[in-house]
Amino acid sequence: MSLLADLLSTIFDRSTKATPNTKLDNRPIAKLILDLIGSRGEVRGMTLARQILDRYTAMSKAKKRDFFKYLATGLDIDPVDVRAALEAYEADPSRINYRSFMEVAEPARQELVRRLNQVPRATGSLVAMRQDLLELARTDASLSALDLDFRHLFSSWFNRGFLVLRPINWESPAHVLEKIIEYEAVHTIDSWSALRRRMQPPDRRCFAFFHPAMPDEPLIFVEVALTKGIPRSIQKILAEERDVLEEENADTAVFYSISNCQAGLAGISFGNLLIKQVVDDLSSQLLSLKTFVTLSPIPGFTQWLKVENLEDVATDERLPSLAAAYLIKAKRLDGSPLDPVARFHLGNGALVHAVHADANTSIKGQAQSRGVMVNYLYDLSTNAQNHEHFAGSFVIAASSDIKALAQAAEKLDT
Amino acid sequence: MSLLADLLSTIFDRSTKATPNTKLDNRPIAKLILDLIGSRGEVRGMTLARQILDRYTAMSKAKKRDFFKYLATGLDIDPVDVRAALEAYEADPSRINYRSFMEVAEPARQELVRRLNQVPRATGSLVAMRQDLLELARTDASLSALDLDFRHLFSSWFNRGFLVLRPINWESPAHVLEKIIEYEAVHTIDSWSALRRRMQPPDRRCFAFFHPAMPDEPLIFVEVALTKGIPRSIQKILAEERDVLEEENADTAVFYSISNCQAGLAGISFGNLLIKQVVDDLSSQLLSLKTFVTLSPIPGFTQWLKVENLEDVATDERLPSLAAAYLIKAKRLDGSPLDPVARFHLGNGALVHAVHADANTSIKGQAQSRGVMVNYLYDLSTNAQNHEHFAGSFVIAASSDIKALAQAAEKLDT
Amino acid sequence: MSLLADLLSTIFDRSTKATPNTKLDNRPIAKLILDLIGSRGEVRGMTLARQILDRYTAMSKAKKRDFFKYLATGLDIDPVDVRAALEAYEADPSRINYRSFMEVAEPARQELVRRLNQVPRATGSLVAMRQDLLELARTDASLSALDLDFRHLFSSWFNRGFLVLRPINWESPAHVLEKIIEYEAVHTIDSWSALRRRMQPPDRRCFAFFHPAMPDEPLIFVEVALTKGIPRSIQKILAEERDVLEEENADTAVFYSISNCQAGLAGISFGNLLIKQVVDDLSSQLLSLKTFVTLSPIPGFTQWLKVENLEDVATDERLPSLAAAYLIKAKRLDGSPLDPVARFHLGNGALVHAVHADANTSIKGQAQSRGVMVNYLYDLSTNAQNHEHFAGSFVIAASSDIKALAQAAEKLDT
Amino acid sequence: MSLLADLLSTIFDRSTKATPNTKLDNRPIAKLILDLIGSRGEVRGMTLARQILDRYTAMSKAKKRDFFKYLATGLDIDPVDVRAALEAYEADPSRINYRSFMEVAEPARQELVRRLNQVPRATGSLVAMRQDLLELARTDASLSALDLDFRHLFSSWFNRGFLVLRPINWESPAHVLEKIIEYEAVHTIDSWSALRRRMQPPDRRCFAFFHPAMPDEPLIFVEVALTKGIPRSIQKILAEERDVLEEENADTAVFYSISNCQAGLAGISFGNLLIKQVVDDLSSQLLSLKTFVTLSPIPGFTQWLKVENLEDVATDERLPSLAAAYLIKAKRLDGSPLDPVARFHLGNGALVHAVHADANTSIKGQAQSRGVMVNYLYDLSTNAQNHEHFAGSFVIAASSDIKALAQAAEKLDT
Repeated sequence: MSLLADLLSTIFDRSTKATPNTKLDNRPIAKLILDLIGSRGEVRGMTLARQILDRYTAMSKAKKRDFFKYLATGLDIDPVDVRAALEAYEADPSRINYRSFMEVAEPARQELVRRLNQVPRATGSLVAMRQDLLELARTDASLSALDLDFRHLFSSWFNRGFLVLRPINWESPAHVLEKIIEYEAVHTIDSWSALRRRMQPPDRRCFAFFHPAMPDEPLIFVEVALTKGIPRSIQKILAEERDVLEEENADTAVFYSISNCQAGLAGISFGNLLIKQVVDDLSSQLLSLKTFVTLSPIPGFTQWLKVENLEDVATDERLPSLAAAYLIKAKRLDGSPLDPVARFHLGNGALVHAVHADANTSIKGQAQSRGVMVNYLYDLSTNAQNHEHFAGSFVIAASSDIKALAQAAEKLDT
Repeated sequence: MSLLADLLSTIFDRSTKATPNTKLDNRPIAKLILDLIGSRGEVRGMTLARQILDRYTAMSKAKKRDFFKYLATGLDIDPVDVRAALEAYEADPSRINYRSFMEVAEPARQELVRRLNQVPRATGSLVAMRQDLLELARTDASLSALDLDFRHLFSSWFNRGFLVLRPINWESPAHVLEKIIEYEAVHTIDSWSALRRRMQPPDRRCFAFFHPAMPDEPLIFVEVALTKGIPRSIQKILAEERDVLEEENADTAVFYSISNCQAGLAGISFGNLLIKQVVDDLSSQLLSLKTFVTLSPIPGFTQWLKVENLEDVATDERLPSLAAAYLIKAKRLDGSPLDPVARFHLGNGALVHAVHADANTSIKGQAQSRGVMVNYLYDLSTNAQNHEHFAGSFVIAASSDIKALAQAAEKLDT
Repeated sequence: MSLLADLLSTIFDRSTKATPNTKLDNRPIAKLILDLIGSRGEVRGMTLARQILDRYTAMSKAKKRDFFKYLATGLDIDPVDVRAALEAYEADPSRINYRSFMEVAEPARQELVRRLNQVPRATGSLVAMRQDLLELARTDASLSALDLDFRHLFSSWFNRGFLVLRPINWESPAHVLEKIIEYEAVHTIDSWSALRRRMQPPDRRCFAFFHPAMPDEPLIFVEVALTKGIPRSIQKILAEERDVLEEENADTAVFYSISNCQAGLAGISFGNLLIKQVVDDLSSQLLSLKTFVTLSPIPGFTQWLKVENLEDVATDERLPSLAAAYLIKAKRLDGSPLDPVARFHLGNGALVHAVHADANTSIKGQAQSRGVMVNYLYDLSTNAQNHEHFAGSFVIAASSDIKALAQAAEKLDT
Repeated sequence: MSLLADLLSTIFDRSTKATPNTKLDNRPIAKLILDLIGSRGEVRGMTLARQILDRYTAMSKAKKRDFFKYLATGLDIDPVDVRAALEAYEADPSRINYRSFMEVAEPARQELVRRLNQVPRATGSLVAMRQDLLELARTDASLSALDLDFRHLFSSWFNRGFLVLRPINWESPAHVLEKIIEYEAVHTIDSWSALRRRMQPPDRRCFAFFHPAMPDEPLIFVEVALTKGIPRSIQKILAEERDVLEEENADTAVFYSISNCQAGLAGISFGNLLIKQVVDDLSSQLLSLKTFVTLSPIPGFTQWLKVENLEDVATDERLPSLAAAYLIKAKRLDGSPLDPVARFHLGNGALVHAVHADANTSIKGQAQSRGVMVNYLYDLSTNAQNHEHFAGSFVIAASSDIKALAQAAEKLDT
């Protein structure tokens, strides 16, 4: 452990060193790119890679678009070459033919990205590059295929085996904590005092995944409240004045906020593994914990009420029934739940446990779901089975209460 | 820095936890593999991955061969699918068509290896798996193409951007130091006392590359002696009784041993980046250092003397001339130097600086090169240019002394 | 290094463990104290010590006064015993007689404090205890002798050899940074944004001494600005909007704030060693630094102008002259400078380098010194000599400019 | 935690820096000493302290004796001054009178040692200095009182509150592990392979106390074997070939070796706190552990048999009875057990649990105790009470088996 701690500290040292004074190479960037892809020496390659990254960073949005265009078209696969190599391999599946096929079946831009990554701190820059790309691709379909290459590489690099789970708390470095403030997407943190209320008390926890090559950047984090019983209100959890619970008196761990941090890692999912790992860690550390549950928003509920013309029916006492019905009956075309948060937790093997009116009295809570929130339950004994049923045919696991509520809602419908 | 140190310590925690008690899945391994490749849930995937790795580890050599055969044939690309996807993409290079092409142009076994890597400590197991594969492929050509997939993935994972340079010394953990004993391939270390002589004195240094997912395993390491002047004898460097030099009196750093550690990472080269980084680090730490040089073996010299019928001519006083001639004139068919160590250092931009008779009096030294050794000089001012000339057309940089010696040898030849 | 890092982490582990469930001992605290002082078993002693500390913490101010009264009188030396032991030792200076003398010549309360310190985290509690004592002693002379015992022990425990210098920056733990906000006594920090401006930019530094037994508590810290040239205004240094200087362009390090953190360590001085160490560290890290200087308040200047009836004379253009005169001529009865900050820096061997009008435009700055500030220069070449002359006979080192200014002020006087 | 780790790393940095080039002060050492004791500036003090320590280190044994003589006589208390100060304090117990008394009642050599300790790494040097002193004092009674001053200071500095417990294992730094080899005093470790057998297997543990100012030096360590059942033979524990037990199958932790490391800390006891802490830590980590027991030598048994003329009676089958009798009946004049190891463990509140013949077949084991060894049991439920009874009146706690065996031995006696 100490070796690792020790050895990793180098990344930092290396990273903060100023770029060595290399002569600027004024050739067009496409030249540098081709040179980098073709270079055999790693040392020369690193100099080229650094220059390309530096130039990219300084580019205007329009220039970045050109850059990506070049990657999309100039560094694409060549179907003629692929076909030829494929035929050769089909005729004789030898090592040399397979190598030729591999070389032409993967576009040169993937090798480019890998080589750019040799530069210290490049991984973070490449994640930022993809963020730019995703933004540009929204209005330029010709770039959307290109994103698949980034995604493919990032899936490999941000593999679970390379991620590190870390607790975040009031003893964490300030520059990381300020990122929690920045990235919190579910229940905004508006000051350091508010942050402290979530990070310091012994009945509050936070965990994040990090990647060793981006040690200052959380990838995703989850905030946890330790409680006695399952909570029914997010405002009570976030209250400024509240009684702090002794760790050993808690029987429930509540995941009340999960936020992805890196727009450039969109589509590479960490959430389910994060929750799984945190459940494992907490349950082995705090033997008194018996229940693992979320207190989650229902982002599509208000909209669904509208679409279904149920706004008038949705009086206060009927909201829970309707929410239960929405969660387990409203579906997308492919049969999966309409609600995105439901898809996430059910996909992890959780079950819909309970819904609560007046659970989120904030403006956002009212707008999204008329103040209703839901607990998804992570029960280790049924988790694998729930997951399987859901993965197979979108069977939704729910408590009998929820089922009864949804049943009751049907009568409203008619 | 402290965050990183801190966060990385989790890898250890995670890794040492016993495998959770999951029910053993008794289906054939091919079933598990297909299940893993096709699974959508990461949690379920991790359970499958763990079982596959555990089963693989327990396999006999014959079973491992079967396992690889299955990967080579059962999880290969399907040319029919590739061709169809290629045509679709050629006709319409849309995102969806590109995705389809990517999916079929990459064999499923690559996805398998990526998914196996989700398990804690899996990276090391996969490196060991490739070591098995390389051994089996030596006698079974049908497996040699398969290795390209491992190599492709490992090149991406062991990218310079993910590696960490660390000093190794007498304060390093014993379990890492014993690996230095195990992996030292150039000048064997035969006891802890011998190790201590190389690691503890202030005029001895050692540096290694590590990967965060294999924190206990050096990937490659270099041993350095700080000296006054360029050394002419390896025995003097390794002597049990010698005067230790004060760090600030050293003007020369001698790379006297470089060893790769992981057979399963064959073909993924770290050596030139290691030397480059160590030169950078040492020169910024020890301002008195002016010269960076190797004291290297000449592994092919004796054999070349024999092939060239020069054994009789090679009297003691003529050995240096002949060695110089061998190093700069003996070539392979492609024009590159015949000597493998020369290829490595010249490829890094070093130059042949000097040769010394009686430089290695050990049995191995006599057998390889009649006791002659060579200094390759790493000179930052000429390094880039040397590298370029060598990379382009195998132009060998050498000192005027070496050139003169080689010239003198020509006369012997005639 | 890694071992140490590793080994020290235990303090934390140990400290956070809840107090074991020991039966509460309801006897009067004086009984527990005598029991602890007399106990031979360390394990039993630790239980007693913990109970005494817990009880003390829960005491009202009045009870604390009683507690200290008991220490002052009940655990004082006994002159009769001391005299007897002294006579025996005088007659025969044997080991046994010396031991007897030592035992009675040191009051039992010192042993009490040492034994209390066995409990994890006790050191911090004892520092807090002395803080209480100092407050009570201000109005109760009978307690002031008692403080000498605490001071004696703390001088030994907080010996320079046990202190650790650490940089504090934006990557430091939040719970330490909030203490910087709390303890900054010279130029108040009123928000996390203000703190960030002092901790994050590359031309700002902060260093603190810590003690291993109180790892979360800085003892003293100094804030440093790296500048080009010697600064003439504190507001410019603290400005929200300012150009950040590249580290390598700085030629001057400015100590612009030094704050003691622990009221319970009053009288145990760390300041001069802190500055000395920081000068050493910065000058070896940043070779471009040539000048080490303070930008210091002149706390007694306004008051002195008043006492000397110089308020009317002190027009804007004359303030620097008067300040120079105040700094080098105004003395206390013992011959030392009247100004406390001057005493500190001159005692460290610094010299009075320059005074600046309009250097501190804050209300506090106007009130203390009519906005004038002073640079004390830490010049390694004259430091030892200055120190010696000052220590011997309060000779004040000053630049020729300052001397000339002070000279000019004399004419005003007449 | 990370802060602490971080902050402590400075000690190392600081310590390894070369002594700055200060001019050597050629005055007699007594002059330097008086100068140091009297100096007011810490910076000047540190230069003096360093020179004194450097000079001391270079001294011959004879010179060291002179040095200590000077401390013993030249820096002793002055009875006249003490008496005068005592009388003043008796007449008026004011702060100023108490301060005067404190100053003269403590010999100046204590202040000297405290001031020497300001130098980086000085603590270790002072511990070594006391080691020299203890050796010299053995043959020179005039120095034996002087040792009390060192002991007094060290008791304060090496207070439990400042010590750190750390596990030692195969991942510990080599330079610490080699000290385990060096200091192991009970069952010698003769090679790195032997060390590895004690440090690496999961059913072997080692713990040591460290002091932050001597981070490379263990103060005391204990070796632990995790076993199933209470062991009856040390050779079985140390066997080269043995079945390693899974951690979770162990029900017993056996303390089979405890070694003090620093001769210069003689008389400052850490052992009982070490065992107490290790019992606490292991029992909270490994819930399967039910029994904490030693396997201890009986160093005085053979000698006692001789003195008591029991050598002839002591046939193999009678050895255990006699050993039991020795342990619980053989006493010193003050009523404490004759056996030193028994005194240590019984003083900690352990009880004599069992004795085993043929438990130590080594030459040393035969010589000390005819191969018999003893288990002392650390039972948390009886520990405090045992301790109290033993501390009060040397009542020895023992199992009924031991009592019966000792009873049986009495019949032999007659």
